[in-house]
Amino acid sequence: MNVAIVGASGAVGQEFLQVLSDTKFPIDTIRLFGSQRSCGRTYSFNGQEIKVELLDSESDFSGIDFAFVSAGASVSREYAEVITRHGAVMIDNSSAFRMDADVPLVVPEVNPEDAFNAPRGIIANPNCTTIQMVVSLKPIDRLSRIRRVHVATYQAASGAGASAMDELVDQHAALSKGESAHVEKFAHQLAYNVIPHIDVFTDNGYTREEMKMHHETKKIMHAPDLEVSATCVRVPVMRAHSEAIWVETERPLTVDEVRSAFATAPGIELIDSPAEKQYPMPLHAAGTDPVFVGRIRQDIANPNGISFWSVSDQIRKGAALNAVQIALYMINNPR
Amino acid sequence: MNVAIVGASGAVGQEFLQVLSDTKFPIDTIRLFGSQRSCGRTYSFNGQEIKVELLDSESDFSGIDFAFVSAGASVSREYAEVITRHGAVMIDNSSAFRMDADVPLVVPEVNPEDAFNAPRGIIANPNCTTIQMVVSLKPIDRLSRIRRVHVATYQAASGAGASAMDELVDQHAALSKGESAHVEKFAHQLAYNVIPHIDVFTDNGYTREEMKMHHETKKIMHAPDLEVSATCVRVPVMRAHSEAIWVETERPLTVDEVRSAFATAPGIELIDSPAEKQYPMPLHAAGTDPVFVGRIRQDIANPNGISFWSVSDQIRKGAALNAVQIALYMINNPR
Repeated sequence: MNVAIVGASGAVGQEFLQVLSDTKFPIDTIRLFGSQRSCGRTYSFNGQEIKVELLDSESDFSGIDFAFVSAGASVSREYAEVITRHGAVMIDNSSAFRMDADVPLVVPEVNPEDAFNAPRGIIANPNCTTIQMVVSLKPIDRLSRIRRVHVATYQAASGAGASAMDELVDQHAALSKGESAHVEKFAHQLAYNVIPHIDVFTDNGYTREEMKMHHETKKIMHAPDLEVSATCVRVPVMRAHSEAIWVETERPLTVDEVRSAFATAPGIELIDSPAEKQYPMPLHAAGTDPVFVGRIRQDIANPNGISFWSVSDQIRKGAALNAVQIALYMINNPR
Repeated sequence: MNVAIVGASGAVGQEFLQVLSDTKFPIDTIRLFGSQRSCGRTYSFNGQEIKVELLDSESDFSGIDFAFVSAGASVSREYAEVITRHGAVMIDNSSAFRMDADVPLVVPEVNPEDAFNAPRGIIANPNCTTIQMVVSLKPIDRLSRIRRVHVATYQAASGAGASAMDELVDQHAALSKGESAHVEKFAHQLAYNVIPHIDVFTDNGYTREEMKMHHETKKIMHAPDLEVSATCVRVPVMRAHSEAIWVETERPLTVDEVRSAFATAPGIELIDSPAEKQYPMPLHAAGTDPVFVGRIRQDIANPNGISFWSVSDQIRKGAALNAVQIALYMINNPR
């Protein structure tokens, strides 16, 4: 396969290189694309040095099978035609096309077959918070249809990019020297703080990040009546998002049923031995592939409810890994 | 009034001194009590140096009107009789007596009059997470009876005491020097992490901290059918707890109704201008008295639901301030 990575210098772009190597993706050639700022840089892939090419309206994607794109929604919109013109499948990590009716929104553990229904050659990768949640919702939904979800998130700095991680480290360094913290990437100081504000606010008082969890979950799960109310919060963690989730199902489920369903579900690793202080945490999840699930219990405020806790590295499963898994599914299940 | 502080050297004990001064509590004499480890230390109160006396079975509380006790549940159980023997009202910050039928559990904004129904001379101060939540639930419950609550917490290190705050700072200092973080007060490293585990686990999979929110809310609000499902999480913040809350009421409420109710409710300060990046955050709430409330919106997963975000300094309103407010209420509303 011939692949391209667009936005190669970003946090997710760099993770694409790692994930393509880790998954032993069948690669014949690999090309990297970036903005004026990053073009000319070189990155090594499996021992080979690869130079970042400039992405512009003249860029030639002929011969490319899969283009993994993570350079923001405006770049995706501007260059989708350039990228897909010669038949490359564009797997787009931005929010640009996610809700378009003719662009599938795919999480391989949930709706892999949707990837083949992409008339524009574009497949959208969902938002990181949504990916990790739907992976854990799917096995529950198989037991009994989910009617609604309440979710509070604990989102890592890296969700705002590589420079946001640097800002958090710099803030801690400054504060420990008695200096004041420099704030640029986030709305407020993140060190020793939590910020209930990710992406911009919409008219109904929810942020766009929260509404993504609402709309994208419906689309991925083919469940227009499944309602999600989210509160998305940035926390001073480097990598891996955590989510406190309550689901209401059509029939009451037992904790044992749900635990068994999680134990055999693809992409999920169960860590649920609280007596041994074993439960998912971002510190342990960073740099790994699974969606970790634990703290499974009855919702004591709802007879049809189950509550649990999920943690996943949002740059791997929440972005690069999910996109690569979509491509692998298409390669391994040709239509 | 003659007052005593038991557990004077702890984080809450120190806050009692501050709050008694800040509230201009009518004090004639003040005495401090502590363990062998802290007795003999002196603390200044309104310019006067006061020595910590040893708390033992011989301690004489005669003449004391109010004893503010915050030295853990086992100390409260062991010395309740000693403290109350001569008629002192013991306002206890521990969990020792909270669920006893003959001990009122009081939040002045919610059920102040319960303070006068204390046959054992003991009034319990609720858990910090509960206090902050019920202050915000009460004005909603006045509009329409609350049926259930889902809440995810973001709890500061200081909830585990003064030495836990030091541990978090030390962890950050060590990590920024490339050293490993020392873990003692928490189950795991808290720096750059979140830990879904506060207090011990109970048989139903909830922690005792989470079950406190369930049981204490029912008792304070005189609402045996109000069900609370909580997920309590420690975050690397120094001071002030945050809570993402969803409430379901008997009739549907509008955001405007709820906002108006919050705006005039005692103890609450509304910060809800998201377009100006104004919402409650622990960094701004630390060291202040109010329960800050914001991010008020419809629960889009429940037609009878409202969602909001609350932040409060759990050492002030969540502990010392609430206890002092109970005493002030009793002084100002004599029976």
